[in-house]
Amino acid sequence: MKRRAAFQGAPGAFSQVAASQFEGGDLIPVPTETFEQVFLSVVNGKCHCAVIPIENTLHGSVHENYDHLLKYDLVIRGETFVRIVHNLIAPPGVKFAQIRRVYSHEVALNQCRRFFEENPRIERTPFFDTAGSVRMVMEKGLKDAGAIASAAAAGIYGGRILRKSIEDDRSNYTRFFLLERPKRGSRFVKPDAAKRFKTTVIFSTRNTPGALFRALSAFALRDLNLTKIESRPLRGKPWEYLFYLDFIGHVEDAAPRNALGHLAELADMLRVLGCYPIGQ
Amino acid sequence: MKRRAAFQGAPGAFSQVAASQFEGGDLIPVPTETFEQVFLSVVNGKCHCAVIPIENTLHGSVHENYDHLLKYDLVIRGETFVRIVHNLIAPPGVKFAQIRRVYSHEVALNQCRRFFEENPRIERTPFFDTAGSVRMVMEKGLKDAGAIASAAAAGIYGGRILRKSIEDDRSNYTRFFLLERPKRGSRFVKPDAAKRFKTTVIFSTRNTPGALFRALSAFALRDLNLTKIESRPLRGKPWEYLFYLDFIGHVEDAAPRNALGHLAELADMLRVLGCYPIGQ
Repeated sequence: MKRRAAFQGAPGAFSQVAASQFEGGDLIPVPTETFEQVFLSVVNGKCHCAVIPIENTLHGSVHENYDHLLKYDLVIRGETFVRIVHNLIAPPGVKFAQIRRVYSHEVALNQCRRFFEENPRIERTPFFDTAGSVRMVMEKGLKDAGAIASAAAAGIYGGRILRKSIEDDRSNYTRFFLLERPKRGSRFVKPDAAKRFKTTVIFSTRNTPGALFRALSAFALRDLNLTKIESRPLRGKPWEYLFYLDFIGHVEDAAPRNALGHLAELADMLRVLGCYPIGQ
Repeated sequence: MKRRAAFQGAPGAFSQVAASQFEGGDLIPVPTETFEQVFLSVVNGKCHCAVIPIENTLHGSVHENYDHLLKYDLVIRGETFVRIVHNLIAPPGVKFAQIRRVYSHEVALNQCRRFFEENPRIERTPFFDTAGSVRMVMEKGLKDAGAIASAAAAGIYGGRILRKSIEDDRSNYTRFFLLERPKRGSRFVKPDAAKRFKTTVIFSTRNTPGALFRALSAFALRDLNLTKIESRPLRGKPWEYLFYLDFIGHVEDAAPRNALGHLAELADMLRVLGCYPIGQ
């Protein structure tokens, strides 16, 4: 039986593109409206897994999803990277010269500033969703409007791509996580000598001089390579922080296991969110 | 002569509220469309200073503004904090029961989820700007629509507040910077024994095990207190990082001066963006 993967957005969203990169493209994508619904649909068993964006090269971390990772007991089983390519899409037959308005999510509109500067006759119109804006333009059969979204969205809704890759910055990548309920007995994927693993943790320390430095010593003294560190304001305690940290290594190998034991001594709170093969 | 302060957004934006908290409320707020225009209007002398959001307790850092701080030669002269209070605003005479649509920036709409769940007859409608949505609803004299924005925006455009403080989370604060051109001779404000100072830097290190740990040793070995650390994906080099760091101390005092010298030895790139009195 194929596995169902919840994602946020309309069919054709970049999260669906990410889902197609996991498990040999065999996941059945299940669209939901909000990120919280994505988590809930795995927690309550409606879906086997979920695919969520966690970080973008231009916009940084998706804090809401870190919050959900703390709240719900799911584990990270994989990561993948998607280059965000924005295309101008319109109903078949509509010519570029006819376009007066372009719909898309505000983030996507902001990532195509040069396109709008070069085409001042075209009005930017914020919409809830990139792929959803293609669906709306197609359903209404608009003759003077287009939408900005993935090539996948054009394919799903039968739109035509009028301009390819209109984003300002080609170094626009989003990192996605594959999430599951933890399995009984073994919370994380087993080590595999043929693969390299990454581990994602969240921790907090008292706000005293050197607290973060001592926390990082747990990794540095064992020559573990950090790939991410970020302080995050704590909700309800303005200007107190927790930390997101990723490092290369598997939690069952000696150095990472000892580093996490050491960090647990130093931290007020420590959660291992997942241990998973490094993605591409 | 009163000083002119550029900010992004329409009159009544939260940045204007922040501007009123600097220099005894004597700054003349000057609205502009984009953050880049805010920076340019100080660089080219149209405004004396600028007020920009840099970090929010729910959404994290405003990466675009860190990018502009790296690109343009302005220095941080102050910081302040604004609690983000969202209000439902409509033209005078419009009753709450008449409201069918509510306009605002998508971020503000998302921060008032509970309000929309409790009032399912009201449609969420994304708009470019919080204060701008009040202006639009007032200018069009809409009878069935409202906007979500600051109390200041209601005052400026003559709207009535129908519901106060409808945000889901009261621990929603934004930190703002006051920026200026660097003065000749003394790049930063002079130390003042009666005030406590904070310093903001950006640096990058090679992505080798322990590189960040060694960089932080420059502060930990001198008992300096970090208030922020964040790794940030480097544009054009996906998954290489630079770091945002804030610490308590004045760059001309001995320990911070030595720490920055030490960090300069270890970092590939180091920029001190400002040294300013700690805000409230």
